This record gives sequence, structure tokens and C-alpha cells, in this order.
Amino acid sequence: MTDFFEGIAPVRFEGPETETDLAFRHYDPDEVVMGKRLEDHLRFSVAWWHSFAWPGGDPFGGQTFQRPWFGDTMELAKMKADAAFELFEILGQPFFCFHDVDIRPEGDSFAESERNLQEVVDYIGTKMETAKTRLLWGTANLFTHRRFMSGAATNPDPDVFAYAAATVKSCMDATKKLGGQNYVLWGGREGYETLLNTDLTREAEQMGAFLSKVVDYKHKIGFEGAILIEPKPQEPTKHQYDYDVATVYGFLKRFGLENEVKVNIEQGHAILAGHSFEHELAMAASLGILGSIDMNRNDYQSGWDTDQFPDNPREVTLAYYEVLKAGGFTSGGTNFDAKLRRQSLDPVDLVAAHVGGMDVCARGLKAAAKMLSDGLLESARAARYADWDASDAQEMLAKQGLDAIHDTVVKADLRPEPRSGRQEILENVVSRYV
Amino acid sequence: MTDFFEGIAPVRFEGPETETDLAFRHYDPDEVVMGKRLEDHLRFSVAWWHSFAWPGGDPFGGQTFQRPWFGDTMELAKMKADAAFELFEILGQPFFCFHDVDIRPEGDSFAESERNLQEVVDYIGTKMETAKTRLLWGTANLFTHRRFMSGAATNPDPDVFAYAAATVKSCMDATKKLGGQNYVLWGGREGYETLLNTDLTREAEQMGAFLSKVVDYKHKIGFEGAILIEPKPQEPTKHQYDYDVATVYGFLKRFGLENEVKVNIEQGHAILAGHSFEHELAMAASLGILGSIDMNRNDYQSGWDTDQFPDNPREVTLAYYEVLKAGGFTSGGTNFDAKLRRQSLDPVDLVAAHVGGMDVCARGLKAAAKMLSDGLLESARAARYADWDASDAQEMLAKQGLDAIHDTVVKADLRPEPRSGRQEILENVVSRYV
Amino acid sequence: MTDFFEGIAPVRFEGPETETDLAFRHYDPDEVVMGKRLEDHLRFSVAWWHSFAWPGGDPFGGQTFQRPWFGDTMELAKMKADAAFELFEILGQPFFCFHDVDIRPEGDSFAESERNLQEVVDYIGTKMETAKTRLLWGTANLFTHRRFMSGAATNPDPDVFAYAAATVKSCMDATKKLGGQNYVLWGGREGYETLLNTDLTREAEQMGAFLSKVVDYKHKIGFEGAILIEPKPQEPTKHQYDYDVATVYGFLKRFGLENEVKVNIEQGHAILAGHSFEHELAMAASLGILGSIDMNRNDYQSGWDTDQFPDNPREVTLAYYEVLKAGGFTSGGTNFDAKLRRQSLDPVDLVAAHVGGMDVCARGLKAAAKMLSDGLLESARAARYADWDASDAQEMLAKQGLDAIHDTVVKADLRPEPRSGRQEILENVVSRYV
Amino acid sequence: MTDFFEGIAPVRFEGPETETDLAFRHYDPDEVVMGKRLEDHLRFSVAWWHSFAWPGGDPFGGQTFQRPWFGDTMELAKMKADAAFELFEILGQPFFCFHDVDIRPEGDSFAESERNLQEVVDYIGTKMETAKTRLLWGTANLFTHRRFMSGAATNPDPDVFAYAAATVKSCMDATKKLGGQNYVLWGGREGYETLLNTDLTREAEQMGAFLSKVVDYKHKIGFEGAILIEPKPQEPTKHQYDYDVATVYGFLKRFGLENEVKVNIEQGHAILAGHSFEHELAMAASLGILGSIDMNRNDYQSGWDTDQFPDNPREVTLAYYEVLKAGGFTSGGTNFDAKLRRQSLDPVDLVAAHVGGMDVCARGLKAAAKMLSDGLLESARAARYADWDASDAQEMLAKQGLDAIHDTVVKADLRPEPRSGRQEILENVVSRYV
Repeated sequence: MTDFFEGIAPVRFEGPETETDLAFRHYDPDEVVMGKRLEDHLRFSVAWWHSFAWPGGDPFGGQTFQRPWFGDTMELAKMKADAAFELFEILGQPFFCFHDVDIRPEGDSFAESERNLQEVVDYIGTKMETAKTRLLWGTANLFTHRRFMSGAATNPDPDVFAYAAATVKSCMDATKKLGGQNYVLWGGREGYETLLNTDLTREAEQMGAFLSKVVDYKHKIGFEGAILIEPKPQEPTKHQYDYDVATVYGFLKRFGLENEVKVNIEQGHAILAGHSFEHELAMAASLGILGSIDMNRNDYQSGWDTDQFPDNPREVTLAYYEVLKAGGFTSGGTNFDAKLRRQSLDPVDLVAAHVGGMDVCARGLKAAAKMLSDGLLESARAARYADWDASDAQEMLAKQGLDAIHDTVVKADLRPEPRSGRQEILENVVSRYV
Repeated sequence: MTDFFEGIAPVRFEGPETETDLAFRHYDPDEVVMGKRLEDHLRFSVAWWHSFAWPGGDPFGGQTFQRPWFGDTMELAKMKADAAFELFEILGQPFFCFHDVDIRPEGDSFAESERNLQEVVDYIGTKMETAKTRLLWGTANLFTHRRFMSGAATNPDPDVFAYAAATVKSCMDATKKLGGQNYVLWGGREGYETLLNTDLTREAEQMGAFLSKVVDYKHKIGFEGAILIEPKPQEPTKHQYDYDVATVYGFLKRFGLENEVKVNIEQGHAILAGHSFEHELAMAASLGILGSIDMNRNDYQSGWDTDQFPDNPREVTLAYYEVLKAGGFTSGGTNFDAKLRRQSLDPVDLVAAHVGGMDVCARGLKAAAKMLSDGLLESARAARYADWDASDAQEMLAKQGLDAIHDTVVKADLRPEPRSGRQEILENVVSRYV
Repeated sequence: MTDFFEGIAPVRFEGPETETDLAFRHYDPDEVVMGKRLEDHLRFSVAWWHSFAWPGGDPFGGQTFQRPWFGDTMELAKMKADAAFELFEILGQPFFCFHDVDIRPEGDSFAESERNLQEVVDYIGTKMETAKTRLLWGTANLFTHRRFMSGAATNPDPDVFAYAAATVKSCMDATKKLGGQNYVLWGGREGYETLLNTDLTREAEQMGAFLSKVVDYKHKIGFEGAILIEPKPQEPTKHQYDYDVATVYGFLKRFGLENEVKVNIEQGHAILAGHSFEHELAMAASLGILGSIDMNRNDYQSGWDTDQFPDNPREVTLAYYEVLKAGGFTSGGTNFDAKLRRQSLDPVDLVAAHVGGMDVCARGLKAAAKMLSDGLLESARAARYADWDASDAQEMLAKQGLDAIHDTVVKADLRPEPRSGRQEILENVVSRYV
Repeated sequence: MTDFFEGIAPVRFEGPETETDLAFRHYDPDEVVMGKRLEDHLRFSVAWWHSFAWPGGDPFGGQTFQRPWFGDTMELAKMKADAAFELFEILGQPFFCFHDVDIRPEGDSFAESERNLQEVVDYIGTKMETAKTRLLWGTANLFTHRRFMSGAATNPDPDVFAYAAATVKSCMDATKKLGGQNYVLWGGREGYETLLNTDLTREAEQMGAFLSKVVDYKHKIGFEGAILIEPKPQEPTKHQYDYDVATVYGFLKRFGLENEVKVNIEQGHAILAGHSFEHELAMAASLGILGSIDMNRNDYQSGWDTDQFPDNPREVTLAYYEVLKAGGFTSGGTNFDAKLRRQSLDPVDLVAAHVGGMDVCARGLKAAAKMLSDGLLESARAARYADWDASDAQEMLAKQGLDAIHDTVVKADLRPEPRSGRQEILENVVSRYV
């Protein structure tokens, strides 16, 4: 036991009117919504990296946080795990996520790094025996170490490809061992800083081969979780190949993997790619590849990822509306970074960030569920396209050529009259639920 | 004959040192570069819409231009065609492009609009008999009229789908009649203003069916040109489905059209989508769908399409470098809007915009050709990936699973050392040629 | 009486649970908040231009709206006024705003345009005798007509400057006649498209002289309202001189007008300038120049002004928090464009947009008032700076030089320890009230 | 002597056709342009921080560079200085710039840090005796250390204000001792992460008082260089108070410092603020506060500072055109970061970045000088405003009220006809010189 969170009691649901600072005002895990407990809808997960491993630096400033577990020894890695599970107990959320480098010190060799990983994984496994928190997903950090500066799967050096492949094997093994429900790939360096030194064709082939190997290995070891790609358009690279959901879909089709791999969509990444979060969710659902979400938001005023906890009920409502419309999560869940601002030095700040984010999500999910149940939006949507349900419209769509349609238009002297899209009215509908 | 350009003589190549305002300083159509005349490399095209049809309005201001051919009669449409061919004679460029609505007045019915189109097409055809200018591509404007306000192929009203299909048939017929070398589709309203009233799945199916019909009709009438989609991420819509090259590729794969349709890439659209122009060109080349280009640039300071003629030699060089690396244009070419600023009222402004753009393009293509011939960039690129050409690297890529690679990494105690990406040196190489 | 809004009854406050579509759920004009009626806090105003004059065009499409009053005659201008007051009666808001060109047809000469204006002003004046709606502010449209394409006060042609000055005189007279509480200047063309043809020094001097004349004329005619500048960074121009609040402040100081002129701040313009709305409000309050607000929002996903009605309770709360903290409105109020999306063709869409916007504003103001009354944010803010209230800190600030401070630092071996900024906790405080 | 740059000879001017990689193709220091040597026009400066102190990290990755001088001892600090002067000898540029933390290790106390600074300053001073390189400006880093995380002058803790003031005193002393020609303040943390915890009024007063103390101390010690503020809109903060040139001007006016302080303008910061670089230069010149420039550019595709060396001849030409039009540099010069991409590991990359940047600047300055001497742009600009030189126009501007002007407009029936702004023609003029 650490004493890092000393004096901070487990956070309880106390309702909207409570005066307690660290209470859930909206998140009652046991509240039943659309036939399911809120906890089972939301499937919250805490992210090891920003919550426990990030030191508070930014491009113009160094470390501001002083955590007792910062350092490179196995002992400190275990103290970090202790602190993590203490936070999990305070929050009561059902899941966590990690990268290999979040939980283990780097070794002098691949083998040593792997042994370190295995030892911490065992340590975490033991803690999980007495904790309720399970593993939502594991992943490999293939972007921080200088060996990956020019990419992992897409590196011009085959040795780095090999090192990355070996690392992913270790991380998939670890994820399976801990009962992880998904395995995630975020290609932070799979892209380029300059097109001048980059061979797009080679790099795509390398990336396709790498992903195929991941899928093969999943089947080989009988890992039953989903493989998820996390799209992002840029940062740290100038261009990242997994730009957005539509780009990832094209890539999966190209390599025949569209039935094997889904996406883990992050709000901030959607924004950086020029989309709304709900767009990316709806697009993934429509393409059949919606897997899981990272709910951390960006600041619209900053041109980079800020990974803040969600705070905007309207936006969160629209996001969960798409999730619920798609049937809710199966193996996926709501992970969110609660990357503290680097001036937020205290343990209580870390707890508050998670509590605030969970509460806004709960509020959003409940609003979305009611909005979906009431059916105002969906009945308006269906009515808008209703003319397409007629058999002659379906016949035209499925069978007629341009010339046949042309003849109909001329013969019927078709003069289609536009109809209101009713956007403002629909936006007011949303306002009722937020 | 109009007297609109009275006093403006045909523009000639006079070399970089000339004092003549309206002269080509870099574009000598007959200069041979990499075994081909510049004219045949660049394949310049003038765009009918911004050059002849645009009245100078913006969202906060009305018409500023006063062209004698503005109006809605057939007579004025022919005067506009006369003026267009007078500009073509001044510039000497080999191609032009048009939308149906650029060249014909809207009729009271579809049939009348189509008759108007056919009459002007015949008029233009007659003019082409004595002119050197040919048709690079035709297209249908399915975004300006209020009937298309909620989309053309993706409209919730099947009658609008039908009207759009009939319109495209007319325009493909017209394009074929005029010997057009390509047919372009830009889906200016194929997207949405709000997700709240939109059914992404239906709209994608409608769009896929529409595009399949276009391809079928092409084969039916024996049109030998290429079918090209022009990607754009947004504007006028909040989201446009043909977001960027990678998105279009995924869409083509989804509907099995990746061998039938290519892309027409516009610089300004690439910028709006968060890419560089050269990125989109390289991506399309790598995916085998590079068709043609629209060279008009955006102002980096404005968040919307400005459609200005290209003025930046470095950027233009990088763009043509990708075109040349991909083997140059086949049916495609260099179209560019020279959308005048709305304060540029005079005929000489219109000529100057085209001359300036053509000259910068010529300069860029010559620089790119020399850069490619000298081979400094390509030899550096090949050297960077050379280790992948080894047989064991290829073997790993093609055949080994994660676990086999893992064993090699451990056994060999692999410690890959990063190598410089040499970006600055490569940027200096480019600077030598610009 | 027109029958445009036929069948739409006056909108009433019915509380959050009502099933009525067109009802206020949060805006009860008579509810007392912090000792003042909500109506008197919010001081809502309807904007003539987007609500009655805008035809639904965008840069890629023409008119979609078909209003019976569209056209250029005096009779239609009066019908437009009739329709406006019918909407005012439906909404019950206390104010409206207008540009000259919104309410009168353009004449063949300045004199005729002015006579048209005066006649419509008289017509509106008569209507106001029996209506509760008053005039929040008037303004001159110096950006739509082609004569202003290169600026009004900053035009290179002194005749345009004169025309603009004469126009503003007319509009100030009209505003005074109708009892307007403010007069606004938005310099939509006071900026440039290219620096290449622009003389920044001359244009600043022209703009300063123009503004001084406006202030002088205000005093001359005894207009008791405030003169307000509306900042915007760009669009339609590439650069607009009244970029943001801080820029306007510098301009006012330069011409000695900082005690004569305040700002009218628009949410969308703040966003375009790279700020949050609350930032611009707080900055103006801090500089003593906060006048009035335009509550219309932009779409974060679009790089241009979308002028939509506000829909985001959290953002609106933060905005009104700054207004209330500054003491609330005096002559200013809450104007907002409810620019319909161009697919929203029906009268009910127009009503819904206003109702939705007013309701979200009311909700935000009430949340802000409670947040301010409870004092959690302000007590935290005061505590954060409390050390500055000590006399030695004030002494250092006011009187000591760098060298004296240096000596203290060395002597005291000062090692300041950073303290948490508590951002997440404060964000959670806001979440309680939204 | 280090052997870091072993094998890299001093870089010489060899002309555009040379095959030498590391040669100046355009920068001949002794070439005379407009009566002055190029070296004296450009006044190049190398920036200590990115060239010698930056380890190659980014928000998603750690150190990539391995410099022999990295570390925290005085010995390594001197080795870094040795390497710096070796680079200066290779490049032959006349100036350098530094922050205190770039050149000295942090001490355990303020006093120790200051002693470290003084010792390295003496060491550098000795090196300067035999080197040609002089000091363009010094500055204090008040943003990296965690004590400054909530601001320096604007910190809520007066002790941090004091620490910052003492630091600036040290750095001004050091700058004077080394013969620095300017002293720069960049307020990297003078802004906020959230308005919720920020008192804008207090922070502005603190910042004004701080700047006044800097000016007072300058006069007290007889420092004859200029005091320069470097504007930046954001990053690392969400909002930085010295947003852009116009904002800084307003701030200076507010505290009566507009004749004491000028600006150091950085290309990348101009871009982040939504301006072009040439805009910020022209604006500063027009306001009489143009001091010096940082020529490092941003990548238009990335939403943060990339600090790359300039590579775009057209943009650089437009920038120097404004500098030359304003009379050229006096105490200022051309500093530029040549922040290597973090994959550019080798010494030759560092040299290449500087050579490339200097060459593009030289090319731009020569083009700008010719463009200014030829006078095509300036004569067009003067002609555009010529009507304002008439006495009645000046009379109207200086003396007439709105009503008098109104009477003239009516009486004369003024109908101003717009004239072409000729933007395209002027852009083509620039193309001739680039």
C-alpha cells in the first residue's frame, strides 16, 4: 500500500444535489438504463499512461509532477501498480488499459525488457485476484523509444520491424494472460515527417504485413478479444497513415482484414482529423468496424492532442447516442485519458479528473438512452428517407441504368421540390435531453 | 467575336528577362523536357466556371464583375463561348473544362435544359473545329440549384437521384461528343450539414449505386476517357463523403470500382483535408488511382477554398515531382481555376491570372524534371530502405509469424540503432532546383 | 398582416417537461434571478438580416428560401417589416437589430436610398408604437455593395469614404429616431485581400479619422447610446483590422477613443480569431470596453462564420458568467443571428431556431448566476492570488527595481514551490451548474 | 576543441551551380545590395537552444540526439560553448542568441545558477575575443522550470515574480557584458491554461509593472540595445498574452511603453496567430515597433510551432521586402531556429539546416531588394491611393464631420465606381523576382 491517496475515500454516487466535492452526481453504476446497468453500458477504463506514468512535461517545459514511483526500477514499477489499484478502488471503475512501457522499466536488452514486463504482469495479475478491475485492453508503445523514431512496422530498417513484432507478441501474450478483452494498435510513428525520404508503397506493404501477422498470432494463441486500430491523423508525425476511420477502412479492405480488425476511436483524434467524434462513431458503425472508444477530448483552441477528460454534456450525449444506436459495446468500453494539466500537481486533482469525466459520461449516456428510446430523432430520420422504401425507387437504385432513368425523368417531366432538412428542430430535440 | 479582350495580344514565351507584363517567362510549349514537349507534359486546361461564369460574389458581398455575357439567354451563352475561345487563343493552352450550368442557361424543365446544353455543345463543337483547344473533361453541376440542396445521388428524395442521374447522362453524352478525355464527378452536396438527419448507410449505398451506373454507362456508350472523382473534405457541406484520396480509395474498394475510377486532385481540397498537395498525389499514385489535377491553391490563412492560381514555385515543384515520378499524365492534365479576387474587375486581370499560373507551373515542372533526372532524391530514398531488399528481410515480411520473429530478436539480441532521416539535407536538395 | 407564420401561436414558457415543440423550457421572462427579471438580464434581440433578408445561398449554391417579401420594392420592404413584427410577437423578445440594407431597397442614388430608409424607418416606428419590441442597435452595411469592395473608411478612393460617412450619418439618424440603445460598426471590408496593394498606415489613419467623426456626430446629435465596434479577424477579407478585442483596444488607444467606444463581441468571431468566447468577454471587461454580445456560434468543424443559434449549455454558461461578473448589460444585450441552414425552408424552422437559442441562453444565464452567487469559483480565484495582497508584495510590484528584487531573492535564498492550479476541480465545479 | 564537426570545412559561397553539398549558393556575405553588404543586411544569428541544447524529444517520444556535451556540469556547458563556436566558424554568421538555461547548468539555488551563468558568460566572452561572432540578443528562460509553470511575471505567487525579476536582471547583465545588441522577452508562460483560475486584470498589471522595471533597469545600467517582446498566441499555454503585434502594441500603449519597447517577430508565431509573417512585419513597421525577426517557419500542416529553417523563397522574399521597406535592421537581425527534425541525428544535419536557411534568406533578401529598387509594387501602391493626396480629400479627412460629408455626397450625387485591385498582376510581379 502507498499513502499517495491518503485521506481520499472511495467515491460514491450521491446524486446531483450533493455538496461533496468528490462524489458521483450522475454515475450510479447500478442504475438500470435500457435494461442494463450503467456500469455495463459505460464499461469505464482508466489509462495507465497519463494517470500514472506522465511526468507533466510539455514541449516548452519539464517535469512538474513528483510521484513517489517515478524511476526505472522494478520496485518502483510495483509501487506504481499499487497506486493504480488504489485509484481503481477509489473510483470503482471496472477496467484499466496499459502500454508495456507504462508498467515496466526498460531493460538493457529486449529479453530483459520482456522479463520485466512479465514480472509486472504477474504482479498485476495477483492484484487483480482481489480487485474487481479487469483489463479492457493492452497495447505496445512503439513510439517513445528512439529506436522507433522512424516508425515501427513502417521503419526503413527491417531490424526495427522485427523488434516491433517481437514487442507486440510480448504485449499480446501479456494481454491474454491478464484476461484483456481487446488488443489495440496505435501507430504513433507509422507515418512520416517528410515525404521526401518516404516510400509510401513500401511502408503500406510493411504495415499490411505487420497487421496480418497480428491477426494470425491472435488466432494462433486463441486470444478471443478484438484487435483494434486507433486512428489519428498526425502528431507526433506530420502525417499518420491511420488518419481516420474511413482511411483505416480502406486500408483493411486493401489487405483483406475488414472482418478481423475494428477501430478504437478517440474524441481528440477525430477533432484533429477534421471530424466530429459522433461522425467517426457513426462512420465506423456504418462500416461495421466500431470497436471501442477513448473519450478524452481536445481543446478546440489548441492544435494538438490535449487528452482532457470529457466535460461537455451535449457532445458526450451525441457520442453515446451513436454507440447505443449501434447496439452498445461488446468487447469495447469507455476508456478515457484524464491527462491532468501540468499545473495540477496534487493527488486530489488526479481523482477529480476521473470523477468529473465519469460523471459527464454517465449523464451523456442516460440522455442518449432516453433520446433513443423516445424515438423522436429516429422517426424523423426514417420519415426523411421514406420515399426510398417504395418499390420503384428500389428498382431504380438496384437495376436501372443512367439512360433508363433519363427517359423516366424526361417522360415524367420530373421537377423535384426540395423539402426542409429541419436541422434546427432536431437540434432543439437534442437540447431537451442534454 | 466579342471585344472583351480588345487590345490584348496572344501571350508568347519571351524568357525570364522580358519586361513585357503579359508574357510567358518560363512556359515555352515547345521546350522539350525529359523527351516530351512542355505543352504535352503540362496539358493546361482553363476552367469555364471561375473564368467566365463567376460574378464576383462572396458570402458578404454581391456581384462585382460586369461581363457583357452575364444573363440567361442562349445568345448570351454563345457570347460567353466566344469570349472563352478568345481567351484560349490569347493563352494558347491545349484544353478547357466545363460544367453543364457554366455553358447553358437553365431551362424550365429538364428537357429544355438538356436542349439548351446540346445547342451550346454544338456551338462549342463548331468553334473547336478551327481552334486548337480540346476538352480535358466535362462534368455536371449537381450542387448549385436548390433541388440539389440535400444532395444529388445521396438525396433522401429518389426523384432528385433520378434528376441527377439524367443530368449526368446528358453531360457524359456532351463530353463524349466534344471528344473529352475524362469525365469528372465532384460531390459538392454528397455529404451532410448535420448527422442528426442523415442516414450514412443509405447514402453510401445510393452513392455506390450511382457511381456504378456511371461506369456502366461509360462502357455502354464506348466513352474511352477516364472517370474521375474529385475529393474534398467539406465546403459547402460540413462533411463531404469524398473526403480525401484515402477515403475515396476505401469507397471504391467497398463497391468494387477501384479499377474503374481514378481521382482528380485539387491542391486547395488537399489543404482543407489536412494534407499537402504532394501527399495526395503520392498517395493516389501509390494506390494506382492518380488521374488528373486541379492546380488551384488555397490561401493558408483562410479556412475555405480560395481557388487562386498557383504562385509558389517550391510547392508546384513538389507536386509535379510526384506526377512525373508516377509517369506523367495519360488522359489527365493540369486544370486550374484562376478564380480572380472579386476586386479584380478588368479583362487584363483575367488574362494575367492564367499567365501567372501557367508560368509558375512550367517553372515547377522543369525543376521537378531536373530533380527527377538527377536522381539525388530517389537514390537517397532507395538507400534508406535498402536493407529491406535483403532476402532474409523479405522472408520475414512475407512469411514469418510474430513468434518466429520474436525468437530471432531474442536470439540475436537485436539492438537496432536509429539512422538519420536526413530531412534537412533533402530539403536543401529541393532548394537547389526551385 | 402577412400569413407567413400562420398557425404558429406565440411561444410561452411551459417548463422543461413540456411536450410542446415550440415552447420555452427554460426562458421565463419574468423569472427573477439575482434580483432582476430574466428578460432584463438577457435583453434578447432578433437580427433582421439572417432572419428576414438572407436568401439561403452559399458559395456553391443559390437561393433556397422563397419568402413572399423578397424583392426590391418599398411595398415588399414593408411586408418584410410586417413579417418581422409578427415573429417578434411570436417570440416576445424585447429587441431587434438591423442594417440599412436589411430594411430598405437600394435606390438609384444615395439620396433615393436615404429616402427609402427614412420611409421604412417611419413605417417601423409606427409599428413599434403598438409593439413591445425596441431597437437594440442599428448599423450600416458597408460591405455588400460593390462600391465597398475595397473597403469603406479604408478605401483607396476618398469618394467611397465620403459615401460611407454619409451612409453612417443616415443610419445613426435612423437609430436615434427609433430609440436605439447602441450604434454598431462592423468593418467587414476594413482590411485587405492582399498586402501587396495595401498601405496599412494610410488605412489606419483613415479608419481612426472615420471613427472619430462617428463619435463627434454622436455627441452633436445627442445620441445617448453606446458606439460599439464588432471585432472579426477575417472573412470576407483575408485580414480584417478589427481582429479581436485586444486589437481593437490598441486601435482605440492609438486614436484616443478608449473612453468613447466599446465592443460588441460575437461568439463566432472569437472562435475565428483563435479565442474562446469567454476569453473575449473577460478581456473586454478587464479593459473596460465590454458593450454587447452576438451570441451566434460557429461550427468548430467549419473554417468560416456559420452564425448558428447557440446550442451548447456549457459554453453559454461560461459566457454569461463573464457578463454577470462584469455587472451585466447596461445598454447592450444578447443579439443573436439564427442563420438557418439553407435546407431549413419552412417558417417553423425560423421560429424554432430562435426559440432554441433563447432557451439555451436562459439556461446558461441561470446556471451562471447561480455559479456566481455560490461563489465557489471566485473564492478559489481570490485565494490563488491572495499572496499578492500582502503589503510587501504590493510594495515590490509598485516600487522596487530589478536590482532590489534581485538582492532580496539572493538574500532570502528564495525557492518558490509551485502550487496546483486545480483546473480539473474548477471544471467539475462548472459541471455542477450546467 | 571538440571533434563534433570533424571533417566539415567552413562553408563558402560557391554560386548556384556548385555541386558541393555544404556550400552557399546564394549567400555571399560580401555581395553589395542596395549599398550594403549582404552580411550587414541579413545579420544572421544562430540560436543556442535548438542548435545545441534540444535533445530531440517530442510529446510522444524521448531524446534522440546524443551530443557529447549533454549533461549538467560546468565542464559540459563549456564543451557546448566550444561546439557552438566551432559551428559559428563553419557558418561564418555574425551573431548568436541564447537563453540563460541554454548555456549554464541549473544550480541548487538562485545564487548558484547565477554564478554558473557568470562563469559561462566569461568563458564565452573569452571565446568572442578571437571569434567574429557577436551577440544579437540574450534572454531569460522563464518557462521550462516547474517553478514557472503558472507564469513568471504573471504568476499568482509573488515569490515567482521576484525570482523571474532577479533572473532577468542576471540575463540583462550578461547580455550587456557580452555586448548584446538587444534584450528579448518571450512570455511562454505569461498566459493561462484555463480562464477559470485566472485574474486577467491582476496578471496584466503584473506584466505591465514587470516590463516597466525591465525598461528602468536598462536605463539604469546604460544598456544601449533595444528591449524586444516576442509575440506568440499560444503554446505552451492555451492563451498567451503577447498574442500578436497588434496586441503587444495595445499593451505597450496601456502602460506607456510604446516608445521603449519593440517586437521580435517569428514567422511561426505569426502563422499560429492567423497572420502571414509579412503582415506582422508590416504591422509592426506601421506602428513603429519593428525590432528584429526570428525567421524559423512552421509547417502549415501542423498545429504547433515546428521551428524549421526557412525553405520557401517566395515567403522569405515577401518578409524581407517589408524589412527593407521599413529601412532594414538597426539593432535587430535575422535569428532563426534551425530546429532539426528529431530523426536528423548527425552533425552534418545540423550544419545543413543552417546553410539551407541562410541561403534561402539570402535569395529572398536579394529578390526583395531588387523588387524594391525597381519600384513596380510601390508605384502601383502609391497610384492606388493617389486620390487621397488631393487637398479636398485631405480636408475631408482632417476636418469635416459626418453631416458635412453627407451634404457633399447628396449635393454631388456621388456614385463612386470601383476600380480593380490588380491583385493577380501584383502577384505576378512578385513571381518575376522570386
